[in-house]
Amino acid sequence: MRIIYGFILFFFLTTQQLVQAQNGIVVFQSDFGLKDGAVSAMKGVALGVSPTLKLFDLTHEIPAYNIWEAAYRLYQTAPYYPKGTVFVSVCDPGVGTDRHSVVLLTKSGHYIVTPDNGTLTLVAEQLGISQVRQINEAINRRKNSNESYTFHGRDVYAYTAARLASRTITFEQVGAKLPNEVVRLPYQKAEYKGRIVKGNIPILDIQYGNVWSNIPKAMIEQLGVKPGAPLHVQIYQNDKLLYDKSVRWVNTFGEVAIGEDMAYINSLMNFSVAVNQGSFSETYKVFSGPEWTIVVSSN
Amino acid sequence: MRIIYGFILFFFLTTQQLVQAQNGIVVFQSDFGLKDGAVSAMKGVALGVSPTLKLFDLTHEIPAYNIWEAAYRLYQTAPYYPKGTVFVSVCDPGVGTDRHSVVLLTKSGHYIVTPDNGTLTLVAEQLGISQVRQINEAINRRKNSNESYTFHGRDVYAYTAARLASRTITFEQVGAKLPNEVVRLPYQKAEYKGRIVKGNIPILDIQYGNVWSNIPKAMIEQLGVKPGAPLHVQIYQNDKLLYDKSVRWVNTFGEVAIGEDMAYINSLMNFSVAVNQGSFSETYKVFSGPEWTIVVSSN
Amino acid sequence: MRIIYGFILFFFLTTQQLVQAQNGIVVFQSDFGLKDGAVSAMKGVALGVSPTLKLFDLTHEIPAYNIWEAAYRLYQTAPYYPKGTVFVSVCDPGVGTDRHSVVLLTKSGHYIVTPDNGTLTLVAEQLGISQVRQINEAINRRKNSNESYTFHGRDVYAYTAARLASRTITFEQVGAKLPNEVVRLPYQKAEYKGRIVKGNIPILDIQYGNVWSNIPKAMIEQLGVKPGAPLHVQIYQNDKLLYDKSVRWVNTFGEVAIGEDMAYINSLMNFSVAVNQGSFSETYKVFSGPEWTIVVSSN
Repeated sequence: MRIIYGFILFFFLTTQQLVQAQNGIVVFQSDFGLKDGAVSAMKGVALGVSPTLKLFDLTHEIPAYNIWEAAYRLYQTAPYYPKGTVFVSVCDPGVGTDRHSVVLLTKSGHYIVTPDNGTLTLVAEQLGISQVRQINEAINRRKNSNESYTFHGRDVYAYTAARLASRTITFEQVGAKLPNEVVRLPYQKAEYKGRIVKGNIPILDIQYGNVWSNIPKAMIEQLGVKPGAPLHVQIYQNDKLLYDKSVRWVNTFGEVAIGEDMAYINSLMNFSVAVNQGSFSETYKVFSGPEWTIVVSSN
Repeated sequence: MRIIYGFILFFFLTTQQLVQAQNGIVVFQSDFGLKDGAVSAMKGVALGVSPTLKLFDLTHEIPAYNIWEAAYRLYQTAPYYPKGTVFVSVCDPGVGTDRHSVVLLTKSGHYIVTPDNGTLTLVAEQLGISQVRQINEAINRRKNSNESYTFHGRDVYAYTAARLASRTITFEQVGAKLPNEVVRLPYQKAEYKGRIVKGNIPILDIQYGNVWSNIPKAMIEQLGVKPGAPLHVQIYQNDKLLYDKSVRWVNTFGEVAIGEDMAYINSLMNFSVAVNQGSFSETYKVFSGPEWTIVVSSN
Repeated sequence: MRIIYGFILFFFLTTQQLVQAQNGIVVFQSDFGLKDGAVSAMKGVALGVSPTLKLFDLTHEIPAYNIWEAAYRLYQTAPYYPKGTVFVSVCDPGVGTDRHSVVLLTKSGHYIVTPDNGTLTLVAEQLGISQVRQINEAINRRKNSNESYTFHGRDVYAYTAARLASRTITFEQVGAKLPNEVVRLPYQKAEYKGRIVKGNIPILDIQYGNVWSNIPKAMIEQLGVKPGAPLHVQIYQNDKLLYDKSVRWVNTFGEVAIGEDMAYINSLMNFSVAVNQGSFSETYKVFSGPEWTIVVSSN
């Protein structure tokens, strides 16, 4: 009899260990901006669930309705947080439509609470899908909020994230398990073909106007070049060629003159171009999104 | 003798219970912006009082000197924080004049530390006045700050809030009790009259350009309409009619086409108008403040 | 034998006490802005070192590459935080060049983790230099970040600050002791000469457009004037006179009419000029930086 209990206990513990223990940290992202009280109200709701939670921000300056950028910011940031961190991302142009409200547990042990509208595109690729659960709003919805149709960020997402992060509920209690899939936005993958590397410009390093690609360092090295070498860089918006120059690949900004164009590997280990102490984006009118292509070859 | 002690203890406990126990959470609001060190200096002072305090922000992007918006952001946010939370609001165009520095304890159990210059208008109505105390600056002022005439936010408000939130002082030790009144800014109340609803536009949902009114959902329902129905909406700036259209009342943004005007109930359960995935405010040049009136009737 | 141990212990304890015990608080400053994930990634790394750290922000809106403003914001804020606080400042136009990465321990007991590129100019003067250590990146660099050349803020500065603040490492373990010097940016000091006071405009109170000088109150008092008196104020950009007026020195903004020019002592106890409820900077096109001079005399 004790052996049976032992087996049950063993099985229970093992099952539990498949799920990453939450660490009490919640990280908020949204397209709300910080000029009104929306972000603060979400945090108030979270503290009402548990005042010992540790609350942080990713960014709240996602351009309104820009799901792609929300996806990118999670990709840029989530891996640096400890396992068991719960992220909340609210960029939700389709609020009230039939998109699912979900919690993704990545293979890396991070939780992401969000509408499943494409926001998970990049973290699903990068960190892997361990499990997806649909938020059961019958349980995981702030009390007295039933009539409030439009602020899911506060009443469902922040509330559920806080309950999960504080272990008020288990991951299973979020709601029913869904297939291991998320809604994915189409975008141009990086590719090496015929001694030419092609990729997309997913995002700008906006504070500095640097242009980041999705081309990993290793793919550039396939061209047979090393830092210090010149590279031929072309940038297209759809079919229109906007930039066509030879640029030196350097390790650090300090290696080129102020005002000089340069190529470098950014903090995500991807190929990027910049003007040292200037804005590449403004100088050459190069921006980011699915319609932007960057082509790199050795000179 | 023991009975007397018992009575004293009973009386003491009862009195104490009238006052909400502070929970160690401080929420800061100001018109300082985040570009300089002012907000951070306030937090440094608070942490100097007690490093275990939990410090959060409401917003620091209140337009300079805009007391009305400071009042509105408190109204939008305070109810979502747990009882015993201490708010600090510093929007203080009259710093150094004879406005009182006060702490309001609301009937809902929230503390608000602020100049009494109208900032408390809406929370006093919404959450009720339990007690108002005037900050005694002889005690509740940061040491070595006597000659600093102009940064009350740091030296008086943040300092007092931190002492109160950390239970370094009791609410009574804030200073003398004042009458249960606060300075109130005049504004247009919502009213139903002759099958027409009138109200004010207190604020925009600025990130999205949605226009919020102070008209509660129930007053719209008095018109005998339900979600799905069209409503006749007019918007005036003083006497000038700027918007005059029939708009569909929907539950969610997803119910109308992109670019279509719509009416909805916002997260505060008030009547609002928007352009789905666009800016109503920019499209129709409609803004917020006491001079703006919105008129709603059934078609 | 026990006496020898006693001596060693005594020596050890005394040496330790020269160094300020860290208090678990980390304050971040940068020129990264808050639109992307850079600041959040730094915090994720810090929480990965120790989830019990208390993380705060100074500002992340330092204009890109503006070392002078980074220096000024530290000066404006650091003294208000408790001893043992660790600041991280990342404004690093010369990343990858041979500027040192250092930790300054001030005489006031504050730690500042930063590239030594002038960022420490003002806190070194204001709070004094107790010790400077160079970050040993062989030890104090996030694992798996060796190939990442360009995000020192995350991989070296935030990581080292978190290790120091959480007492994972001692101050000595940061790296080798350097001479008690830091890189200093040249700037115009305040001076009293021939009944005229001259100084620099290091910064604007940007949210309000007030103009701050580096002239201490006591130097203005050497002119033999007291609050209430008119002062003759001239402002030059290099040799060009842009402002030449008699202005009343007041204790509080409430003492002058709305729209009136005024002089006052700011929250740092320095001479300043403002337009009550307006922007002095915009009205008179006066800005800040080394090329700006302010001259004050009694009328």
